[in-house]
Amino acid sequence: MNKQIILKNRPEGLPDSNTWELQNNPIPEPGEGEVLVQHHYISLDPAMRGWMREGKSYIEPVELGDVMRAGSIGKVMKSNHPKYKEGDFLTGWGGVQQYTVTDGANWYPVDPNIAPLPLYIGTLGMPGMTAYFGILEVGKIKEGDIVLVSGAAGAVGSVVGQIAKIKGCRVVGIAGGSEKCKYVVDELGFDAAIDYKSEDIYEALKRECPKGIDVYFDNVGGEILDAALSRLRMHARIVICGAISQYNNMNDVVGPKNYLSLLVNRATMQGMVVMDYAKDYGKAAMEMGGWIATGKLKTKEDIYEGIENFHETFLRLFSGDKMGKLVLKVIE
Amino acid sequence: MNKQIILKNRPEGLPDSNTWELQNNPIPEPGEGEVLVQHHYISLDPAMRGWMREGKSYIEPVELGDVMRAGSIGKVMKSNHPKYKEGDFLTGWGGVQQYTVTDGANWYPVDPNIAPLPLYIGTLGMPGMTAYFGILEVGKIKEGDIVLVSGAAGAVGSVVGQIAKIKGCRVVGIAGGSEKCKYVVDELGFDAAIDYKSEDIYEALKRECPKGIDVYFDNVGGEILDAALSRLRMHARIVICGAISQYNNMNDVVGPKNYLSLLVNRATMQGMVVMDYAKDYGKAAMEMGGWIATGKLKTKEDIYEGIENFHETFLRLFSGDKMGKLVLKVIE
Repeated sequence: MNKQIILKNRPEGLPDSNTWELQNNPIPEPGEGEVLVQHHYISLDPAMRGWMREGKSYIEPVELGDVMRAGSIGKVMKSNHPKYKEGDFLTGWGGVQQYTVTDGANWYPVDPNIAPLPLYIGTLGMPGMTAYFGILEVGKIKEGDIVLVSGAAGAVGSVVGQIAKIKGCRVVGIAGGSEKCKYVVDELGFDAAIDYKSEDIYEALKRECPKGIDVYFDNVGGEILDAALSRLRMHARIVICGAISQYNNMNDVVGPKNYLSLLVNRATMQGMVVMDYAKDYGKAAMEMGGWIATGKLKTKEDIYEGIENFHETFLRLFSGDKMGKLVLKVIE
Repeated sequence: MNKQIILKNRPEGLPDSNTWELQNNPIPEPGEGEVLVQHHYISLDPAMRGWMREGKSYIEPVELGDVMRAGSIGKVMKSNHPKYKEGDFLTGWGGVQQYTVTDGANWYPVDPNIAPLPLYIGTLGMPGMTAYFGILEVGKIKEGDIVLVSGAAGAVGSVVGQIAKIKGCRVVGIAGGSEKCKYVVDELGFDAAIDYKSEDIYEALKRECPKGIDVYFDNVGGEILDAALSRLRMHARIVICGAISQYNNMNDVVGPKNYLSLLVNRATMQGMVVMDYAKDYGKAAMEMGGWIATGKLKTKEDIYEGIENFHETFLRLFSGDKMGKLVLKVIE
């Protein structure tokens, strides 16, 4: 059987026990030109919260009754596809379920001998691509820039900061708790970290970025975005990648009251969506793979087991109770 | 004597009768390399409210006890300056007073035979330059763009919209009251106008910009900025030029709660300050002068008289009780 997580109700705030339903359904058969993929790992990402919301966004919402959308990686069990054979590994938008059938559109083959599977949905997957294109193409970092990144211990932020270090920037991370702060400085090589749970963020930014900020990569929104705005340097760039502090309260989003700092500092705030860079994923994966191989780019996956545990594992994205890329192992 | 408006107290909200003091002081003597200018007109601009505030901004605040800063235009009465002689007309940062002495730095000569004096502090002065560089360099308009501009009947907005029309855009203006709306459509040639005082701005934008907005030129902030954010097209640009709705309440600025539309639409919000373009003022004035001469660009000045009336005239910027560029005639 194929265990699937079905979206049953659109939550108002944090998803609860009525949001999803675990269903057992027959394993589907691949048709002509299709493959059956058995998922090994599911990617859990903050963006999923946005996909559950009705209305216009950068992607269609997940419909009620549908399998919850998610990135996934797994093995081809049956193939009627000209390019893929049994035993191949593929990554794509398989959803939170144990098996899926696909015609291969927007799926990519991966080699489990080169890197462990979870890496392909982490640093070599959507979060890594988001970091890569966000900080390089939107943030336009250059050597000597002072770069601030929130969610610094997370799947995206940890890569953003390390790329900025590789490019010769001074990098300050913001994370929740001393363990994460220690991790980003000691393990990832950030120049400094700010614990937003125990420090006044305005004071801490004064201390760690006395000359201001050239680039702020924002994964969180809310008060931290406002604090970053208050310390921009001239011609600073803010990359709006996400707003995890607001995702469970989208009807009452707190806007950045310090946005007029954009005017004072001739600064730019720009939004990004990783899918726009799909044609260059390969190039980015090659470069990041090289950095990983040479030890310049470190990755960490926080892997939980069991599709039954999807809901409670998903909530770790918002409680912050995880370290690095959050992954759910769904193969039994 | 030289009547001067001196900043006495920093106001919390709208300036009141304690904010400024009218003083009579001796007319100053120009030193070596200086000129004495008798002001004819003073430029009244929303930005002046910002200059009264203490603290870091794009320009030093006006100090308590100093003459209130303002753009001005007047006639050289005495000259010890190698470039200027008696009878020349100059424009610069002369402040709200009847006479000033300057060494000519950041002052520009103007010819009263080419254009009436108020035009040099309006469309050919700071407001016009703000419009020109804001919509062209920051807004990056191109033919066919849908352009929305707030403060559409004002000194900056009216020029922004007309330049966008010249460049082949569809232009929708937002203004307060039916008279102003009629003016921007009938006189200035905007495609449509929205009266924010009598219409629901979200509904009106749906009607006038059914396909969304490519460029929003923001002079006002607040709810109108949020409404514009809600209708962005892909890769839209928001030019943050000002936030007149917030200037008298800067301790409790309302941030744009719809800012995540930047992410969804891969859009950019960028601040600008006109002084950055000073080296190109001449080029812009030539081009705009040409448009004025050929009737493509219309200007309107709203001129009040008497330096004694500075305070009540200044408040018209915020009540909206004026049409076009607000100017105070101070020569007696």
